[in-house]
Amino acid sequence: MLNFDFYNPTRVIFGDDRIAELPKRIPHDARILILYGGDSARRNGTLDEVLDALVGHEVFEFGGIEANPSYETLIKAVELVRAEKVDFLLAVGGGSVIDGAKFVATAATYDGDPLDILTRRMRIMNALPIGVVLTLAATGSETNNGAVITHQATQTKHTLMGERLYPVFAILDPTKTFTLDARQIGNGVVDAFVHVTEQYLTYPVNSPVQDRFAEGLLLTLIDQGPKALASSRDYDVRANLMWTASLALNGLIGSGVPHDWATHMIGHELTALYGIDHARTLAVVLPSMLKVRKDAKKEKLVQFAERVWGLTEGEDDQRIRYALARTSKFFESMGVPTKLSAYNLGQDAVENVLKHLEAHNMTALGEKRDVTLEISRKVLEGCL
Amino acid sequence: MLNFDFYNPTRVIFGDDRIAELPKRIPHDARILILYGGDSARRNGTLDEVLDALVGHEVFEFGGIEANPSYETLIKAVELVRAEKVDFLLAVGGGSVIDGAKFVATAATYDGDPLDILTRRMRIMNALPIGVVLTLAATGSETNNGAVITHQATQTKHTLMGERLYPVFAILDPTKTFTLDARQIGNGVVDAFVHVTEQYLTYPVNSPVQDRFAEGLLLTLIDQGPKALASSRDYDVRANLMWTASLALNGLIGSGVPHDWATHMIGHELTALYGIDHARTLAVVLPSMLKVRKDAKKEKLVQFAERVWGLTEGEDDQRIRYALARTSKFFESMGVPTKLSAYNLGQDAVENVLKHLEAHNMTALGEKRDVTLEISRKVLEGCL
Repeated sequence: MLNFDFYNPTRVIFGDDRIAELPKRIPHDARILILYGGDSARRNGTLDEVLDALVGHEVFEFGGIEANPSYETLIKAVELVRAEKVDFLLAVGGGSVIDGAKFVATAATYDGDPLDILTRRMRIMNALPIGVVLTLAATGSETNNGAVITHQATQTKHTLMGERLYPVFAILDPTKTFTLDARQIGNGVVDAFVHVTEQYLTYPVNSPVQDRFAEGLLLTLIDQGPKALASSRDYDVRANLMWTASLALNGLIGSGVPHDWATHMIGHELTALYGIDHARTLAVVLPSMLKVRKDAKKEKLVQFAERVWGLTEGEDDQRIRYALARTSKFFESMGVPTKLSAYNLGQDAVENVLKHLEAHNMTALGEKRDVTLEISRKVLEGCL
Repeated sequence: MLNFDFYNPTRVIFGDDRIAELPKRIPHDARILILYGGDSARRNGTLDEVLDALVGHEVFEFGGIEANPSYETLIKAVELVRAEKVDFLLAVGGGSVIDGAKFVATAATYDGDPLDILTRRMRIMNALPIGVVLTLAATGSETNNGAVITHQATQTKHTLMGERLYPVFAILDPTKTFTLDARQIGNGVVDAFVHVTEQYLTYPVNSPVQDRFAEGLLLTLIDQGPKALASSRDYDVRANLMWTASLALNGLIGSGVPHDWATHMIGHELTALYGIDHARTLAVVLPSMLKVRKDAKKEKLVQFAERVWGLTEGEDDQRIRYALARTSKFFESMGVPTKLSAYNLGQDAVENVLKHLEAHNMTALGEKRDVTLEISRKVLEGCL
């Protein structure tokens, strides 16, 4: 096992009917900015429920945070925070809204140009406190300290991390995901799945607990994902997916083991260039990534084949091949395509992504920093 | 899944050579009391390593905290804390020392009679900050908010819980467990095992993630425990056991599921009455407890048989019987007896324990509060 620090102070408040507890968790004299995305939070009643719970508090609203939240949008929220002397941010939504709130929390307390926080990969020294009311099980942002923000002007995704960015609390009410459409559910399941594999499918370091936990999350996604597509109001299924997605990226399963993230880095370029949903880029890249790098990842892939897909017969190579086929098939069964052709993209896209990877210094990716542009090319060509 | 809150702000600092980081985690002007147990912390060099790291700090020492730490001992530490205006406690040891530090942290900030904290099961409102340097993988106290303190005058074990009792940090250096003897290792593995089963072997609430995590911890203990007995210096084995024991009782696997703890309550009386090591009481009580209550726990026991012990053939009852036999055999293989006769105890002990259970209002135990004294009698008679 590798040395590690694990620290995660976010208070998870899990279950139905928990939004009413908001006043217990936000100072009474706080000046609160509620951040949300599109109209769905208002339409499905979650925003009203939050506003009802906060009657008597000073509350401001900032809506319209888009998927892949942009610096250009969020800077307006920063201005609002400063103008109204807001001192508590409440993110009501999924990963994009929460990530956006994390940027706003930092930028509002920063003296210089907020764009520096993204472009100079600055250490986060300060941030306003953030609370979360989660409406989507996917990114895990509700219980971690990271965010990905898009700078539209340069078509670049920037990562932001720091201990001050852990939400103070996260309310996880599975009933809030009853209104999601099939695409959002499919995306969420694939996103969580790939978060796990990025921390699990590397090389062995004798970490049986982390491995078992990762496998447990994958098995749960495989079992519960299709059930979530089949029924929109099964509380337990939605609860299991919500808790799985949080645990997939809250630092726990990644403690003491190597991390990959090459699939994410290539996926980010596909989103920035072509606007493909984040999870959908991962579903395209992961199977090809694992195929191209199967020798370096052999031991973990064989374990994955056996423990996650129950493949205990045949040669290692064959088991790995079957496991990757099953993985692709699972993504497809969740309504998420696994080839670039689904987005009418071909060789041009491969060249474009490679150009952007180079421009963003993504030339040595993966758990051993050996995923060169040449290997990324093979991976991308395998996505066609 | 049941509704739950999960909050655990303890910073885990895991790996070899981490004790030197103590000054990063304790305020420079803190007045620190180091609490420890017997001579082993001094003999094996851990105490010196801690003192070296804290050169320049104001440091006091309080040694001699016994297994099953007693009010009578700890109250002397409380006096020292008050006399020297100590404002930071550093526990160097295993669960007993950490539990003791939690009581001292609370009692030192309490205006009334510190015994009230135990006898009146008071809500913990305040406590000094606690840091931990762990030397034993077993109780999980290093990353949770509970403690068990013995009042020797009444032969009673009292439980103490509260958010203020989470250690601020816990340094988990697996090399510090190289000097443990076989008895300490066996006890630690059994203790962690039973912590898991108390939160796992109840009744199904559709919680696949919690189940998989619990099973992962049990499988790891079964695999790594014997290796720890076989080799005193295998870093990875000690690391895996240390992390497993923490995760067994840090609130994670118990979130959203029913809890039992009947085995612990009966075990506590055996320790208080006869001085049997805590884990050794659990090894005696658990197999009998599961046998007596096998109908109420049937679904989870069948799952345990299948996923933990690989028993997939035969009738349910037979599988459960085999699983319990395997569990007992595992405890015995760790050098931990599973019958009261190993301690020369017979029917008298049964009667004594029952009397104490009644005196302590332990008359409705278990996940459904249906473990009456009559059932506890059957369990205890099964331990003979």
